[in-house]
Amino acid sequence: MSILVVGSVAFDSVETPFGRVDNVLGGSATYFSTSASFFTDVNLVAVVGEDFPQEHVDFLSSRNIDLQGLAREKGKTFHWQGRYGYDLNEAQTLATHLNVFETFKPRIPATYGGADYLFLANIDPDLQMEVLNQVERPRIIACDTMNYWISSKPEALKRVIERVDIFIINEGEARQLSGEANLVKAARKLLDLGVKTLIVKRGEYGVLMFNRASVFAAPAYPLEEVFDPTGAGDTFAGGFMGYLANTGDTSDEGIRQAIIFGSVMASFNVEDFSLNRLKSLGYEEIEARYRSFKAMTHFQGLPEATTAL
Amino acid sequence: MSILVVGSVAFDSVETPFGRVDNVLGGSATYFSTSASFFTDVNLVAVVGEDFPQEHVDFLSSRNIDLQGLAREKGKTFHWQGRYGYDLNEAQTLATHLNVFETFKPRIPATYGGADYLFLANIDPDLQMEVLNQVERPRIIACDTMNYWISSKPEALKRVIERVDIFIINEGEARQLSGEANLVKAARKLLDLGVKTLIVKRGEYGVLMFNRASVFAAPAYPLEEVFDPTGAGDTFAGGFMGYLANTGDTSDEGIRQAIIFGSVMASFNVEDFSLNRLKSLGYEEIEARYRSFKAMTHFQGLPEATTAL
Repeated sequence: MSILVVGSVAFDSVETPFGRVDNVLGGSATYFSTSASFFTDVNLVAVVGEDFPQEHVDFLSSRNIDLQGLAREKGKTFHWQGRYGYDLNEAQTLATHLNVFETFKPRIPATYGGADYLFLANIDPDLQMEVLNQVERPRIIACDTMNYWISSKPEALKRVIERVDIFIINEGEARQLSGEANLVKAARKLLDLGVKTLIVKRGEYGVLMFNRASVFAAPAYPLEEVFDPTGAGDTFAGGFMGYLANTGDTSDEGIRQAIIFGSVMASFNVEDFSLNRLKSLGYEEIEARYRSFKAMTHFQGLPEATTAL
Repeated sequence: MSILVVGSVAFDSVETPFGRVDNVLGGSATYFSTSASFFTDVNLVAVVGEDFPQEHVDFLSSRNIDLQGLAREKGKTFHWQGRYGYDLNEAQTLATHLNVFETFKPRIPATYGGADYLFLANIDPDLQMEVLNQVERPRIIACDTMNYWISSKPEALKRVIERVDIFIINEGEARQLSGEANLVKAARKLLDLGVKTLIVKRGEYGVLMFNRASVFAAPAYPLEEVFDPTGAGDTFAGGFMGYLANTGDTSDEGIRQAIIFGSVMASFNVEDFSLNRLKSLGYEEIEARYRSFKAMTHFQGLPEATTAL
């Protein structure tokens, strides 16, 4: 099954304690698609400017990402500039130049047909709604957002959320959107909006998944070298949705495995700047790290022999 | 096997967003012993003042905690006053009155005999060393500390650490003591001091365990009502050491299970002020929550059918 993703393709300039890069390939749809492409076909809808080099187009195509939905407009490509300190959980945005992204109107090419799996990356909730109105009901709709939209367009965002199956957000955003400091209460409120599965990203602390029947806690992979957390959330979402689309298993069990694949992909992505690590990544490495997650979280069930005093 | 614990027995006055209590039973050795008492016999070494009521002595005795090592000195019992905001991970200390604890010299009663399992709760590392010098080498020595000792007595603390098997500290303390922002690097440095097992407590994010052969990540139990985090770390350590002493299984597998039992005990303790929740806790509840931890962390191993594109 193929995935349709609508989001940003961008240039990033990033500074971390370990180095800096200028005008490298970035954007939510880029990280998502590349990560998902290890598991399934991806159809991408985004916009770039005249300055977007063929080299990046070639890379995305080489990953079997369909680019008929990648519009090229007069002007410059979206550019984000940010910095991370030693606390790599928190980015400081130094500059955001929307450029061609400012007037972006997502148009789904007719050739993409019906999307079975749709990921609405972090864009204006009004645009997310426009996408929902352009497609027949996909089998699974997932979406992301950010603090900016929670503050500026909470009602538009809630209308989108009512129509999605899987909502993927940061811990702080879950608290902000629900108005609840306690994460379990926050999760309950967000599930009450109609979301079936809520995935709360907690950076280096991993992921919590809530649905009506169960809670799943996945750790992040403890890495000795975290070079650049940019794109980790979208890379997680790409691995997660990619695996779901690959297997078609959207049971609680299937979603848990997909969360681990998402966590695996994110753990690789932060090992280098931009998409450099994903570019050199092989599928055997993904499987090996999945096994490491399994080993890292393993413990035995309740032994029969335990007795209370 | 019985456990010897040396630490504080105290009065706490605590304010959280959910209420406040004054002069309630607290202290590291109190939380540790009560928690461990669900799994094994405990011998306690601590000091209280003339104001320590019989009611608390009776409670500890009722938990099969041996109090021959609980010295009663002229003066008042150690009193800690603190406050938590909505971020329940961080206590703000409002007042610390050491009182009789200021001149505390731990003396291990001869009747305690050799200790198989020893827990050095968070006290002055010089006193921790005095305890080590009073006992024959226990089978397992675990110890805790705090930022105050890391800053004021780092060398004394390192001499203690060199002699312990299991070192249990907070994430921030691991970074502070090692001088490494990255937790994996921090863990490596602390293992290099001679510790066999390092347990890093991350509050609501759970626990990471490092040894030379493996890493284990355990989540915290996501609770809808966290009333008072006071004593959570010592309650964790009590459940952890209690289970180890109960089974005698100090293999990697046994330590992982003990970590889950510690996490279970801590998750109950924060549900009410002081030791109120532990007082009403039954062993069936402990087992039920252990099963919840198992369900919450479960995911299937790598499916054979997964194929890369």
